[in-house]
Amino acid sequence: MNIKICDAIELLNSNDNFLILTHKDPDGDTLGSAFALCRVLLRRGKSAKVACPGTIPDKYGYLYNDIKNSGELEPEYIIAVDVADTALLDEPYRSQYENCINLCIDHHISNTGYAENLLLDSEASAAGEVIYDLLYEMGEDFDIFTANCLYTAIATDTGCFKYSNNTPKSMRIAAKLMETGIDVQRINRLMFETRSAARVSLEMKVLESLVYDVDGKCASIFIMNDMIEATGANDGDWEGLSAIPRTIEGVECGITFRQSKGGFKISVRTTPSVDASRICSVLGGGGHRGAAGCFVKGSREEVYKKVLDVVKNKI
Amino acid sequence: MNIKICDAIELLNSNDNFLILTHKDPDGDTLGSAFALCRVLLRRGKSAKVACPGTIPDKYGYLYNDIKNSGELEPEYIIAVDVADTALLDEPYRSQYENCINLCIDHHISNTGYAENLLLDSEASAAGEVIYDLLYEMGEDFDIFTANCLYTAIATDTGCFKYSNNTPKSMRIAAKLMETGIDVQRINRLMFETRSAARVSLEMKVLESLVYDVDGKCASIFIMNDMIEATGANDGDWEGLSAIPRTIEGVECGITFRQSKGGFKISVRTTPSVDASRICSVLGGGGHRGAAGCFVKGSREEVYKKVLDVVKNKI
Repeated sequence: MNIKICDAIELLNSNDNFLILTHKDPDGDTLGSAFALCRVLLRRGKSAKVACPGTIPDKYGYLYNDIKNSGELEPEYIIAVDVADTALLDEPYRSQYENCINLCIDHHISNTGYAENLLLDSEASAAGEVIYDLLYEMGEDFDIFTANCLYTAIATDTGCFKYSNNTPKSMRIAAKLMETGIDVQRINRLMFETRSAARVSLEMKVLESLVYDVDGKCASIFIMNDMIEATGANDGDWEGLSAIPRTIEGVECGITFRQSKGGFKISVRTTPSVDASRICSVLGGGGHRGAAGCFVKGSREEVYKKVLDVVKNKI
Repeated sequence: MNIKICDAIELLNSNDNFLILTHKDPDGDTLGSAFALCRVLLRRGKSAKVACPGTIPDKYGYLYNDIKNSGELEPEYIIAVDVADTALLDEPYRSQYENCINLCIDHHISNTGYAENLLLDSEASAAGEVIYDLLYEMGEDFDIFTANCLYTAIATDTGCFKYSNNTPKSMRIAAKLMETGIDVQRINRLMFETRSAARVSLEMKVLESLVYDVDGKCASIFIMNDMIEATGANDGDWEGLSAIPRTIEGVECGITFRQSKGGFKISVRTTPSVDASRICSVLGGGGHRGAAGCFVKGSREEVYKKVLDVVKNKI
């Protein structure tokens, strides 16, 4: 059931022992949203705990290091934040809670409506923006701790205010959060200007694989297993690489071929003149106009040829 | 003489035939500021022209393509925007006007005060922010054209709202400018997500030169003349590269060695734990705590050793 902010406030006031779930491979938005909400509930005398599956990357430590672990919690009310689909929950929480999530707070228009109550604002740049609105209506003062969380949530989901989901409202909320005195420079450095040595090394190898086609309008890179092994890179290290080919001047279609079992995962990024989702749907995948994906079986040469044959028809 | 916004408005109202000067190697701030001011003066029935030395990179075309060239102008009132020092003017304008600039509008605390009247706000993130305040006080409506100019000015000077000069005020101004309906996505793509093929190729070569020292706390890259030649890169293409080494996890001191006549131009970028200006001052240079530079004579090996000997003492 879709609910409004005032309904969500009522639910938070009338319940206790909150377990707050994030999505798997947690990012700044799901973590920032969860810990901001957790702090405010604790401050109001409630029991609350963030349950994040797997390991939280060290760089997010400032979001929660000061929260005193209040020992075990017998969960009574389950909240999911920034989780569009229960498939995005990780074990053991998925099996345990997927059918009994009481409240979901989200900004994805694709939210499957799995929760008993859904507070959704699909125009919000980040779940952290929905949490901001909620806490604002609750009359909360934003201190450095909640501001750290919510600035991180909004800044990371908007690529530091650069992506198309960024809005004037997001900018104004960020301005208010900056005024609490948070160390924005430190956050920006940690979130946007720090790469692992393995990542830099992998990027070099991947750039060496760069090939142009269709009169320089299509650029492709290859992420092969041996590159990953040689550099000691992990999953997080190659995430951002698929943005690279499209950023080259004159390129309208940037393609990343990531070696995978029996073939390649293809990620296509395009400028507005080319529809990435049409390219990928021909190949059995899908996505958005500017970014789409698919999986293609075969060797590196076979897959490149298959994909380029489609691309040549669509540029 | 330092003046206030109301004085600047009076000067603009009571004069005509304005020549607006930018600094050399023009960037988004100096161009956006100049063309925003020029538009508003034209709209008020004045004659005005932006004089930008050299060629303006194509990507800035949207800032001025629609301004009708009103033919020749006999300059009567000379304005410089975002120009901290007349040494930053380019010929032929420098020789012609350096001693007779009537008004300078700037945000650099280092402004030398060369102009007859100086409208300076050293807390502004960009000259474009000072222009915004000025136009706001003039009662101007911000249309798409002026908003394109001023958003570009502020966004480029703050690294898309990421650098330490970004403030809550800058965020709020950007929010207002976004609301005029400008194509923020196109601007951000042009300004922040487009690199030349030569730049990508150069980056690859430069990354290959990456060396670590002092237990991984120091990372260095080398930009050699033969790399520049092989890739066809130009000056603009290697500007941002010096930021790379410091962004690697665990690196406290990132150094770029740019081959130059008889030696190397050294650019040092540090995290807050290391003082870049102290390193460079030992080597005859200077700068800020986080970013400094110097020139060191000698071969690649000699220069690297000289610089590292100093760095080892300061980390």
